[in-house]
Amino acid sequence: MRLPISLLAAALAAFLPSLAVAQTGLDADDLDTAAALREQALRGSAAWAVVESLTTEVGPRLAGTEADARAVAWAKAKFEAMGFDKVYLEPVSFPVWRRGHERAEVVGPFAQPLAITALGGSIGTGGRPLEAEVVAFADLAALKAAPEGSLAGKIAYVGYRIERHRDGHGYSPGSTIRASGASEAARKGAAGLLIRSVGTDSDRLPHTGVMRYAADVAPIPAAALSNPDADQVERLLRRDQPLTVRLDIEAGTQGEYVSHNVIGEIRGRELPDEVVTIGGHLDSWDLGTGAIDDASGVGITMAAGALIGELKRAPRRTVRVIAYANEEQGLFGGKAYAAARLAAGEVGAHQIGAESDFGAGKIYALRAGVDPAAWPVIAQIGEVLAPLGIATEPGVGSAGPDVGPIVALGAPWAQLAQDGSDYFDYHHTANDTLDKVDAKALDQQVAAYAVLAYLAAETTVDFGQLPVKPAAP
Amino acid sequence: MRLPISLLAAALAAFLPSLAVAQTGLDADDLDTAAALREQALRGSAAWAVVESLTTEVGPRLAGTEADARAVAWAKAKFEAMGFDKVYLEPVSFPVWRRGHERAEVVGPFAQPLAITALGGSIGTGGRPLEAEVVAFADLAALKAAPEGSLAGKIAYVGYRIERHRDGHGYSPGSTIRASGASEAARKGAAGLLIRSVGTDSDRLPHTGVMRYAADVAPIPAAALSNPDADQVERLLRRDQPLTVRLDIEAGTQGEYVSHNVIGEIRGRELPDEVVTIGGHLDSWDLGTGAIDDASGVGITMAAGALIGELKRAPRRTVRVIAYANEEQGLFGGKAYAAARLAAGEVGAHQIGAESDFGAGKIYALRAGVDPAAWPVIAQIGEVLAPLGIATEPGVGSAGPDVGPIVALGAPWAQLAQDGSDYFDYHHTANDTLDKVDAKALDQQVAAYAVLAYLAAETTVDFGQLPVKPAAP
Repeated sequence: MRLPISLLAAALAAFLPSLAVAQTGLDADDLDTAAALREQALRGSAAWAVVESLTTEVGPRLAGTEADARAVAWAKAKFEAMGFDKVYLEPVSFPVWRRGHERAEVVGPFAQPLAITALGGSIGTGGRPLEAEVVAFADLAALKAAPEGSLAGKIAYVGYRIERHRDGHGYSPGSTIRASGASEAARKGAAGLLIRSVGTDSDRLPHTGVMRYAADVAPIPAAALSNPDADQVERLLRRDQPLTVRLDIEAGTQGEYVSHNVIGEIRGRELPDEVVTIGGHLDSWDLGTGAIDDASGVGITMAAGALIGELKRAPRRTVRVIAYANEEQGLFGGKAYAAARLAAGEVGAHQIGAESDFGAGKIYALRAGVDPAAWPVIAQIGEVLAPLGIATEPGVGSAGPDVGPIVALGAPWAQLAQDGSDYFDYHHTANDTLDKVDAKALDQQVAAYAVLAYLAAETTVDFGQLPVKPAAP
Repeated sequence: MRLPISLLAAALAAFLPSLAVAQTGLDADDLDTAAALREQALRGSAAWAVVESLTTEVGPRLAGTEADARAVAWAKAKFEAMGFDKVYLEPVSFPVWRRGHERAEVVGPFAQPLAITALGGSIGTGGRPLEAEVVAFADLAALKAAPEGSLAGKIAYVGYRIERHRDGHGYSPGSTIRASGASEAARKGAAGLLIRSVGTDSDRLPHTGVMRYAADVAPIPAAALSNPDADQVERLLRRDQPLTVRLDIEAGTQGEYVSHNVIGEIRGRELPDEVVTIGGHLDSWDLGTGAIDDASGVGITMAAGALIGELKRAPRRTVRVIAYANEEQGLFGGKAYAAARLAAGEVGAHQIGAESDFGAGKIYALRAGVDPAAWPVIAQIGEVLAPLGIATEPGVGSAGPDVGPIVALGAPWAQLAQDGSDYFDYHHTANDTLDKVDAKALDQQVAAYAVLAYLAAETTVDFGQLPVKPAAP
């Protein structure tokens, strides 16, 4: 996942604790149905089995690999087996990045191997090792402040350590270093970049994640050290003698691949062309099996949609569950989805978009970006979610990464904020595996997504449209 | 470390809480000195700095590598810098085992990589991958019960999961599988062995450790899966179709290497030829930096010896701190030490041998194997240790792995039992790094070793000799 980039701009008016049908467009039967969905999910949902299936049978599924195609086939078959009314694929194109071998070692008197992993999008070392002195910086500002040319032929190391927070806000400065550090280092003449892993753990398992080269720099290889290895590099640098590291990385981007967003729908009974979307991303990084990032999101939202599909009476609007392609390398699935809706004139049909992409921890807050006139519906949904330990938080939050592109076109959104306290222990590492996922926590999330999607699809209230944001550069 | 293989046979007589000088050979000044050592260590010892130095400057130090030689030079210099009276090396020979590359992957419809590491002593796959069907066994008994020839051409997988206990007793059955599983599998015709890691963690970091081939079998490659990968293999096997795995391992034993036990002594003031030994092992596995296994033991006992060396008046007997060579691959250092003492007729000079080789967790018990007449001394030492949260436990315990060989020759021993609750989370993995070591916990251990070594060296009581054990086959 990526961090929130927008907050709901307007503070929202206070609402009455007892909500009228006229304001919420929901009657007592609707609320009973939502509560029943909630309780059914808590008794045991399909989410864990879905996560188990994806992570076991497909395993790692780096976008653009043969496993990507297996994941798409898996998702289509899973939607069908779970009784969705309509299952279809939409193409998503992107450049193909591949990781080959990757090795690093200290050379000289303190010779020893270092655990690294190339950042997604990085080039390699050009078929031979890069051996160079390491120059350390505390953070991106320090790197930017280095004199022009001062890193000529050196390996820049940025040791910024992210903080652990429930809402994950410590991640943002780390991910910025990961994304732009190589370009900043290259501007100073560096031959390579090493960063401390953008993670809160202390395991010898480095965190990958996407990076990009600015147009004005010659690419240099970029990799993350595991946190213990970053500690080690910092200790070695305190030995007051030059630290030379040898990097041998095989990686690069070549060619284009067409993957697919995989979509399953529960058709609305009255307004089938109006949609509430929930989903997660189908791809993962290659190091782990993508259990928390993001098989959990796929499993939670598939299970929630399937529960709604089992109702005797479908909700008014269509519930669309989306397994997005290639989120990790640049939100390609979310962008393609939004672009296709824009081309088809369907953006206005989007009543609410929500996404699960922050691991497998329990949900603690409901947030939303909707027309202020529709806030009573959100408040009503919040009342049904309250027994799950979920607070309704007006005026804060953001859409998820893959929902972001259609929200930028004006679509309303909801966020079910998860406890991400341990998310960055495993995120983008080999340790992102099924054992990190708790089935009961998934059930709580399925309950929340089922309630949200059902009531948002059932209400007669329109969630409106948000201001259109200018496209990112 | 390896687990206790012997227990003190005789239950020891109860002792009076108030101990007479005649029984303990220790006067009030001696006890004051011991208490002062304890308090000084608790205020901050040298142990963490020693561990930091060894793990940072030498890093991984697999026996027989160039890092082994660096570790020996490091230990000699460190003893000298810490003011030991006499520092010397004793040769230790052993065969050289080397790890090259190691890769494993599931082939077929669920293709994905698996995290493995070759067991120490294993052969490789002969320069080309071994691709074979996996046959699973719950434990060693199940493997032994397989019909002759039933594993022809297959890879045997043993899924035994060790239990977490403070005293580490869950390790023993797992280490037995690791040591002898390949021979058992080979007897059934298997082409390779995979085991679940002998560890209590859930990280994608497999646990290595020593194995041996029985004389009557043709060697087959043997490796451990990380625990999450073992889970994955077990899930894949439940898919009710054959599971084929490709192993590509480069490893083997060739040639002989001469390393050294590195010894530092604080010379006794009255009986310099009588010795109390404490120590840890200098070598480590290659995957981590051997911080808990066993830089901690080296650091704790070096720091304890150095504290005793700083006393205005040395204890009666010599305190000998031993950094043993190549414990990991077969207690070579401990065996060489015992053999040299036997050859020199010095076994009887050993009053007490103790060893720190169970990580960096706090000490909770004092145990000993001594002549029953000397038990009051142990009880007295226990009284000085009690403020450290250490209980005296008569009639139980065992010598450490490297002390074992000289104990088998009759030397008395003491054990300072550590809390190993998390030891097998990191043991023999890449995760055995300095960040797993707590400086305050080390200080508690330094306090305990300093008290034990000082009082055992100071007492006028003789600890006697134990029954000689027959040599292991």
